[in-house]
Amino acid sequence: MVMRAVELAQPASLDNFAMVRRAQPKPGPGEVLVRLSASSLNFHDYVVAVGLLPVEHGRVPLSDGAGTVEALGEGVQEFALGDRVVTTFFPDWLDGPLREGLNQRIPGDTCDGYACEYVCLPETALTRAPQDWSFAESATLTCAGVTAWSAVVEHGKVKPGDWVLVQGTGGVSIYALQIALAAGANVIATTSSDAKAERLKEMGASHVINYVDNPHWGQAVLECTGGRGVDQVVEVGGADTLKQSIQACVPGGQIGLIGILTGMDVAFPAFALFSKQVRISGISVGSRRMQQDLVAAVEANGIRPVIDRSFPLEELGDAFRHQESGKHFGKICVEF
Amino acid sequence: MVMRAVELAQPASLDNFAMVRRAQPKPGPGEVLVRLSASSLNFHDYVVAVGLLPVEHGRVPLSDGAGTVEALGEGVQEFALGDRVVTTFFPDWLDGPLREGLNQRIPGDTCDGYACEYVCLPETALTRAPQDWSFAESATLTCAGVTAWSAVVEHGKVKPGDWVLVQGTGGVSIYALQIALAAGANVIATTSSDAKAERLKEMGASHVINYVDNPHWGQAVLECTGGRGVDQVVEVGGADTLKQSIQACVPGGQIGLIGILTGMDVAFPAFALFSKQVRISGISVGSRRMQQDLVAAVEANGIRPVIDRSFPLEELGDAFRHQESGKHFGKICVEF
Amino acid sequence: MVMRAVELAQPASLDNFAMVRRAQPKPGPGEVLVRLSASSLNFHDYVVAVGLLPVEHGRVPLSDGAGTVEALGEGVQEFALGDRVVTTFFPDWLDGPLREGLNQRIPGDTCDGYACEYVCLPETALTRAPQDWSFAESATLTCAGVTAWSAVVEHGKVKPGDWVLVQGTGGVSIYALQIALAAGANVIATTSSDAKAERLKEMGASHVINYVDNPHWGQAVLECTGGRGVDQVVEVGGADTLKQSIQACVPGGQIGLIGILTGMDVAFPAFALFSKQVRISGISVGSRRMQQDLVAAVEANGIRPVIDRSFPLEELGDAFRHQESGKHFGKICVEF
Amino acid sequence: MVMRAVELAQPASLDNFAMVRRAQPKPGPGEVLVRLSASSLNFHDYVVAVGLLPVEHGRVPLSDGAGTVEALGEGVQEFALGDRVVTTFFPDWLDGPLREGLNQRIPGDTCDGYACEYVCLPETALTRAPQDWSFAESATLTCAGVTAWSAVVEHGKVKPGDWVLVQGTGGVSIYALQIALAAGANVIATTSSDAKAERLKEMGASHVINYVDNPHWGQAVLECTGGRGVDQVVEVGGADTLKQSIQACVPGGQIGLIGILTGMDVAFPAFALFSKQVRISGISVGSRRMQQDLVAAVEANGIRPVIDRSFPLEELGDAFRHQESGKHFGKICVEF
Repeated sequence: MVMRAVELAQPASLDNFAMVRRAQPKPGPGEVLVRLSASSLNFHDYVVAVGLLPVEHGRVPLSDGAGTVEALGEGVQEFALGDRVVTTFFPDWLDGPLREGLNQRIPGDTCDGYACEYVCLPETALTRAPQDWSFAESATLTCAGVTAWSAVVEHGKVKPGDWVLVQGTGGVSIYALQIALAAGANVIATTSSDAKAERLKEMGASHVINYVDNPHWGQAVLECTGGRGVDQVVEVGGADTLKQSIQACVPGGQIGLIGILTGMDVAFPAFALFSKQVRISGISVGSRRMQQDLVAAVEANGIRPVIDRSFPLEELGDAFRHQESGKHFGKICVEF
Repeated sequence: MVMRAVELAQPASLDNFAMVRRAQPKPGPGEVLVRLSASSLNFHDYVVAVGLLPVEHGRVPLSDGAGTVEALGEGVQEFALGDRVVTTFFPDWLDGPLREGLNQRIPGDTCDGYACEYVCLPETALTRAPQDWSFAESATLTCAGVTAWSAVVEHGKVKPGDWVLVQGTGGVSIYALQIALAAGANVIATTSSDAKAERLKEMGASHVINYVDNPHWGQAVLECTGGRGVDQVVEVGGADTLKQSIQACVPGGQIGLIGILTGMDVAFPAFALFSKQVRISGISVGSRRMQQDLVAAVEANGIRPVIDRSFPLEELGDAFRHQESGKHFGKICVEF
Repeated sequence: MVMRAVELAQPASLDNFAMVRRAQPKPGPGEVLVRLSASSLNFHDYVVAVGLLPVEHGRVPLSDGAGTVEALGEGVQEFALGDRVVTTFFPDWLDGPLREGLNQRIPGDTCDGYACEYVCLPETALTRAPQDWSFAESATLTCAGVTAWSAVVEHGKVKPGDWVLVQGTGGVSIYALQIALAAGANVIATTSSDAKAERLKEMGASHVINYVDNPHWGQAVLECTGGRGVDQVVEVGGADTLKQSIQACVPGGQIGLIGILTGMDVAFPAFALFSKQVRISGISVGSRRMQQDLVAAVEANGIRPVIDRSFPLEELGDAFRHQESGKHFGKICVEF
Repeated sequence: MVMRAVELAQPASLDNFAMVRRAQPKPGPGEVLVRLSASSLNFHDYVVAVGLLPVEHGRVPLSDGAGTVEALGEGVQEFALGDRVVTTFFPDWLDGPLREGLNQRIPGDTCDGYACEYVCLPETALTRAPQDWSFAESATLTCAGVTAWSAVVEHGKVKPGDWVLVQGTGGVSIYALQIALAAGANVIATTSSDAKAERLKEMGASHVINYVDNPHWGQAVLECTGGRGVDQVVEVGGADTLKQSIQACVPGGQIGLIGILTGMDVAFPAFALFSKQVRISGISVGSRRMQQDLVAAVEANGIRPVIDRSFPLEELGDAFRHQESGKHFGKICVEF
């Protein structure tokens, strides 16, 4: 039995994807055979695709995967035939805080990812999908959803009445907005587009700040909160924004630092950080347990991911080009 | 200048309240003069009123108080004339966990309470009232609201998608339901009345269990959660219910134990507790900081307290008799 | 290849152990073959041995096991031939808090234990042994050591200067004393014997209370701490002691409740619990991660377990009879 | 009644201290009159003294103060005449996490400090001194001691067996080493001097790295821990060291960032931070509660501060010049 898979040749570029045929895998003990139906694109996938993060020649890309259980290895307990499942970002990080070694295997990076029709995985590298979600929607949980959950809930320990600042309209930021609202928080968002600002307000942001019009938006955030500052920032912007984010925080506030470009150094005003006693937490997705908790949370609160656009697997390069354009609002998906 | 105040004579009973005249107090440094407009009744006030919890002869009862700032002592920083404010349950417990000594002074118990027209308090014994709330609504925050917040958020660390069990329809339980829902949790409630069950569902409970029909309701709770159990229980029932509550918990779950009658011993199945590794936290209201956080939370989430009925201050005994009947749903208030 | 193993016939009793021959197991993928050299006895093993906790006919008893890696299955990463290793109490609970299902498999109870010469285990069901410890010493980590660590460090969050109360001279209590001292805390111990009191003081307890002479020892503990109370109690006594333990606590203190006899109910004064806001945490051993942390802690602090006496595997019944006598100080071990 | 006090004229410099006479203050309600006997110098005092952190003309410098209670205002409960006491760094931050406003008043900076013979303070701005400590020793708790405690215990949540990295031999670093050892951790220290390295080893550091010989000491720290990395770093060096500190951490580790020069920006490798999921916590001293906990901890563990040298109050400028030289090991004190 063969299956189709996408491979990324080296040197990597958006023109170097190839559709190939590989043998369909068979589940060993404790493993599950999943027929994959969708994936979605993350910044991490992009830096792999354009070669900023070097991977092995012929690597199957994409960290996200959603599909259906088609066969069960011996001793599988948690899943049954026909179950709709989602892959996890770190197959070895099951629960508890990150420990040494647990973040070594990353599908689509240090091992093969999910741009293919079938995969065999230990059942612990999967969670169930939320009820009534499409495969494309479900696939967005793996990286973007769990990253937002880790920032807002695990590290940020959001509670009702808190103030949360999210930046822009990428997949993580939109999920962070939805999760923070579900947890009873007030959300302030930044964007460069008035049209996107309108959508952010419709989704529940109490204030939206145009960071092009307000380059010193840290001060604007303070004003939105009556001078107090926000309890947490989901920081995705990096070098230019960290100073504003520190200013936007309440004393004792915290900043979840996410997904900044490989190799880049970030400068921040040390005096502001320590006089305000702000905390910066480097966040890189999360554990399987966080994904399980997130599935429960989206079901309880009727959250649905915002999907910008979906591409067929054959047009993976075009999907990345759309991501590169920065015009999207929410997630870009790939369907097989 | 004189004012009216209610005093409770000893031996205490619901017939031993007397309306008296006292000198109106004047604010010292750091103090605020508050014209009180409302209070509300708690189980704690009831045990004082009927003499189960002995207090000094002539004590002014009631721990809750809401009113308006009418004068400022020297150096007051946080409040201005005309501000609508709420008293705190423990005037000395400002922030952080409970420490020795911080729970010694309790208005309406170890010192005079708020069944009177005016009171002078350090500004740290007050918080602002939620915007647009009536005085009666605001008064319910002091004891019932903060107790529920302490259980669900501070000790329970509720997060979206969690399961929370609340018992009955008293003031703490209704607040706990509202706070848990605002935090994105699923709520299961118990009651003895089908009519109350209906109201609980309207308020957002996903399941309501009639504990008269289901004396072994711990099992019923497990079934509501697909066999998993709840993450936390807000336990107000005491001796007869603790066993069911332990059964209702997920392994690692926790029980907030609230307000059980003076002197009573409670038995629980130790094996179940430690094999499930459940935690029982004794909870007695909370700090000023929790009340400030709660005010922010109710405003952000549009929560309004459920008021069963309001009595004039002159009918305080009747108000307590209504509480004694157990027929109420939510809070019983007193207005001056 | 055959090996010797002890089986417990049903109905269980201390006379119903039998030495049998079983086939020596072979390691599958991810598994390690361990030649076991020692075990130790816990209260949990005792209730199994005397039939208070029913198990399958022919069960191999004993949850603790220490030995040497003799063969490696495919893909084993963490261990090498010749490594000295210790088994974990819950082979499925690796890290993070207890979750549903992780405490189902318990060697010597719901599956075969380690009263045998060889065992094959997934590498995740083992940790390395502390450097320079004997096998008998190492075996005491699995249940007694990890239970004490879970109580004092994980749940109790001990810090330098805290006050910790331990009860008696069983294996968990002695480990709790050693761990609390290593963490910089002050330790108060209770015992019924003046001779044991002397040894407890030599080990570092700042105060020892004879609970026979002081049946109301909760008050005595308060006096030892200048009226303040202890930050945590490692409660192993159960029904008769919980009331004293609550009295002994500082407001906001906590009690780790350990290993109480199957089926027994425990009564406590609810008013004291909630007015002091004390927390009772049911504790049943812990995760593999806790055992790894404990190994690091004993090495860093030069802790050695206190071994009362060691029996050959053939005299397992006598070892349990010695445990039953209650005369031991520290752990009773079994060597193969 | 007059007293002597030191004032710092503007523009500030080490030559602009003047000994003046001021009226001796009288305690108001809730206040305590303290006869001060000692202070100690911190980096914060230095930046004030040399004008890098601007303060009001004529400000009394020094945040640390230790002395004896000489008179009690009305209603003081915690202290008695003759008690030996220590001032707190933030007189308004009593307990719980830092909140807005609690760090506004800083003696020796935004209000007068303790380079004087007498001061009146609310009793909540003091803690008792450790038993048997000299005034000079006690004064070192206020800033250096509490900062180290906040980093290692409050933010770092140190536990036995952890690895802690401290940098250099200033007051905070030496306290951090002592506190970490008392908590059962392994300590690695850096220094530029072999003589100081010897003293650090004598104090209990298991490894000392000369950062001049090893400019890439992050790698050297990894090697000391068998490749694993440290659980926490007490980072006092700033711009040049943060990169090495991040490298030195275990995945999930954390860095307490302390006392970096006003206005300076710090750059760090963002990719390393978020891929390792390291946390940077800005730390600026701590609450009164932390100081109370620290007093208990030093007493329980026999910790004594390391005092490099003591100067009379008249030679305050010389004391700061000695600090400026960077040759000290531990604290520089001032005695009155």
